[in-house]
Amino acid sequence: MHAPVELADIAADVLARIRARAPRVHCITNSVAQQYTANMLLAAGAVPSMTISPEEIGAFVAGADALLVNLGTFDIERKSAIDVALGAAAGKPWLLDPVFVERSPARAQFARELVGRRPSVVRLNRAEFDSLSDHDPAGDAPARFAKAHATMVALTGTVDVVTDGERHMTIANGDPLMALVTAMGCAGSALICAALVVEADRWLATLAALAALGVAGEIAALSASGPGSFANAIIDALHGLDRADLRKRLKVS
Amino acid sequence: MHAPVELADIAADVLARIRARAPRVHCITNSVAQQYTANMLLAAGAVPSMTISPEEIGAFVAGADALLVNLGTFDIERKSAIDVALGAAAGKPWLLDPVFVERSPARAQFARELVGRRPSVVRLNRAEFDSLSDHDPAGDAPARFAKAHATMVALTGTVDVVTDGERHMTIANGDPLMALVTAMGCAGSALICAALVVEADRWLATLAALAALGVAGEIAALSASGPGSFANAIIDALHGLDRADLRKRLKVS
Amino acid sequence: MHAPVELADIAADVLARIRARAPRVHCITNSVAQQYTANMLLAAGAVPSMTISPEEIGAFVAGADALLVNLGTFDIERKSAIDVALGAAAGKPWLLDPVFVERSPARAQFARELVGRRPSVVRLNRAEFDSLSDHDPAGDAPARFAKAHATMVALTGTVDVVTDGERHMTIANGDPLMALVTAMGCAGSALICAALVVEADRWLATLAALAALGVAGEIAALSASGPGSFANAIIDALHGLDRADLRKRLKVS
Repeated sequence: MHAPVELADIAADVLARIRARAPRVHCITNSVAQQYTANMLLAAGAVPSMTISPEEIGAFVAGADALLVNLGTFDIERKSAIDVALGAAAGKPWLLDPVFVERSPARAQFARELVGRRPSVVRLNRAEFDSLSDHDPAGDAPARFAKAHATMVALTGTVDVVTDGERHMTIANGDPLMALVTAMGCAGSALICAALVVEADRWLATLAALAALGVAGEIAALSASGPGSFANAIIDALHGLDRADLRKRLKVS
Repeated sequence: MHAPVELADIAADVLARIRARAPRVHCITNSVAQQYTANMLLAAGAVPSMTISPEEIGAFVAGADALLVNLGTFDIERKSAIDVALGAAAGKPWLLDPVFVERSPARAQFARELVGRRPSVVRLNRAEFDSLSDHDPAGDAPARFAKAHATMVALTGTVDVVTDGERHMTIANGDPLMALVTAMGCAGSALICAALVVEADRWLATLAALAALGVAGEIAALSASGPGSFANAIIDALHGLDRADLRKRLKVS
Repeated sequence: MHAPVELADIAADVLARIRARAPRVHCITNSVAQQYTANMLLAAGAVPSMTISPEEIGAFVAGADALLVNLGTFDIERKSAIDVALGAAAGKPWLLDPVFVERSPARAQFARELVGRRPSVVRLNRAEFDSLSDHDPAGDAPARFAKAHATMVALTGTVDVVTDGERHMTIANGDPLMALVTAMGCAGSALICAALVVEADRWLATLAALAALGVAGEIAALSASGPGSFANAIIDALHGLDRADLRKRLKVS
C-alpha cells in the first residue's frame, strides 16, 4: 500500500511523464464528449485522436499508445469500430467506459461482451457498476468484479474507489461541480488512458489520473462562478497542476 | 393573463421544481449542439441523455421525462431515431426545434410531418417560422399556426413570442451575444423540455424557461468579454439564477 | 509584396467586410471541431452551417458563400457528402483541411483526390504537409506544391507560411496555447473560408484570416490562465479585434 504523500508524488511523477512523452490516446467516444475529452488530454500533455471510421481506425489505433472505448452514443458504426480497434490495440492498454449501461439493455449486453475482452481498466459510476455487476450486494463488489474479470475497477463519484481485486484505495478529492459538466467522467477515463501509457502498474496509473483530476477540480472550484466557468477552470488547473498542489490537497485512504 | 411580477415568480417556481426533481430530458439533437445542450440542462438541474441509436433510443426515451427533437444535422439515422423515439414518448411532452428548415426543402418537408404529430411546443426563429408557416403574412401568424396545429409556438429572437393560439406573451430579455453562441437556441429548447416536465401548463412552462434563459443572458453579459466568455457565463448565471434576479429583470408584456 | 503595416490594414479591412456581409460558410468538419468552429465563425461575423446529410447538403452549399472540407472524422457519410458538396459549390471558394493524413493511408489517398479538384486553399500543419507532398525535401516545397496543384498552401504552426507558388509570406504571431485547444486549426480553416468570400485575392484572404487569428491568440494569452480559459479568450479577442491591435502586433515577413 501507499501512504497519501507517497501517492501524491506518484501522481506528480505520472503527470510529468505524460507531459514529457505526449502519449497518443485514441478515443472511441460519444459525440457529446469528444471536444471536452480532446481538450482534457491536450491540457495534460497527451495527444488525442477520435476517428471511428472502420476504414481507418485500425491505422489510428496502431499508431496510438492507448485506447479509450466509451459507449455513450452507441451505434452500429461505433460497435464495428470498437471491434476493429480492439484487434489493432493488441497488447496496448485500453479502458472501457460503459456510459449509461443502466439505461439500455442492448448497451449493457455489449458492455458485458467487452468486459470479456479484458480491458486494462473499467471506469464507471455507481449506477453503471450496479448494472454491470448484476447488482452484486457485497460490500466489496468492485473488488470481486475486478478479480472475476481480471481487470481494474475505477468507480468514480463523490469518493473514487480504485481496486484491482487485491489492492484498494479511495480518493476523496473533487468538487460537486464536476457532476454538472457533461463528459467529465469520459474525460477522466481518457486521462487514465494517458497514465496507463507511462505507468505499467495500472492500479497506480489509475489512482494517479484520478488524483490529478480530483485535485484539479478542487483548485478550479476556488475560482469558478458556476459549472460553465468551472468546465474551463479545471482544464486550466490540470494544465498547471504541480507536485505541491498534489501534496497539499490529495486525500486518499 | 399574468402580470410581469407574477410570471417572474412562476419562472422561479418552475426552476425550483426542475432543481428538485431533476427531470430526464432525452435530446435528439445535432452534433454541434450536443455538448452545450447537455451542459445547459445540467446547469438547470436536469439530466440529459443524447443517444440516437435506433437500437436503444426506445429504452432511453421510455426512461426519460421529456423529449427534444432538433433537426440540425438531419440524417437518415436521426430520422429513424426520431420515429422510434416519438413512439416511445407517447404521452410525454416533446418539443420540435426545426433548425434551418428555410435552407433545405427535405428538412422542411420532414418538419411539416413532425408538426402533424403534435409536438407540445415548436421553438424556432423568425426565418424558420416563415418557412414552416408558408410565409403567412398575418400579424398573428404564430397564434394562427399554434391554433391550426394544436401546438404551442415559441418564436425566439430579440423579443420572444410565446403563444398557444389563445394566450400570447412576449419576453424582451436576453442579450445580442446570445446570437453569437452556437446552439443557444437548441439549448433553450432543451430547457423548455425540462420545464414541461414540472409545469403542466405548457404555455407557462415555455414562458418560464425562456424567461430564465433571457434573464441569465442579461446577467452573463454584465461580466462577459465577448461571445466566448459569454457562452460559459450564461451557464453560470442559469445555475445561480434566483427569484430576486427574475423579479428585478424580467421584461414581459 | 506587402509591408507589415499594409497587411495589418488589409486584415482589418477583410475583418470589417466579414462583419458587414456575414458570409455563410458551410462546414463539412469532424464532430470534435463542429462546435468550436461554429463559435469562431460567429465571433468573426460569419454564419456557419454544418449538415453532412447527403439529402440536403446540396441545398445548404448552394445557399452558402464558401465551403470548408475538413477530413477529421472521415467516414462513408462524410465522403459522400463531400462529393455532393463539391458539385454544388462550383465556382465558390472552398478550402481543404486534410487533418491527420499522416496517420491513415485511406485518408491520405482521399485527400490527394481532393487536391486534384482544385481547392482554393489547402490549410494544414507540417506533418500533414509532409505526408501530402510525399515528403518533398525541397526548402520551397510548399510553393512547389501550390504551383503544381494550382492551389494556395497555408502551412500553419509556430510560424505560418502562406504561398500561392509565386507570392510567399510568413506570420509569426499566435501563442503556444493555441496548440493545446482542439480544433484550433480547423477553426482557422473556417475563418479563411469566410475571408475568401470577401477578398478575391485568395493569398491576401488567407493571410488576413491567419493574421487575425494569430493576433487574437496573442491578446487572449494575456488574460488566459491555461488552455481552458484561452479557448474562450481567443474567441472574445477575435470578436473584439480592431485595426489598432493588428497594426500594433502583426509580425509578418
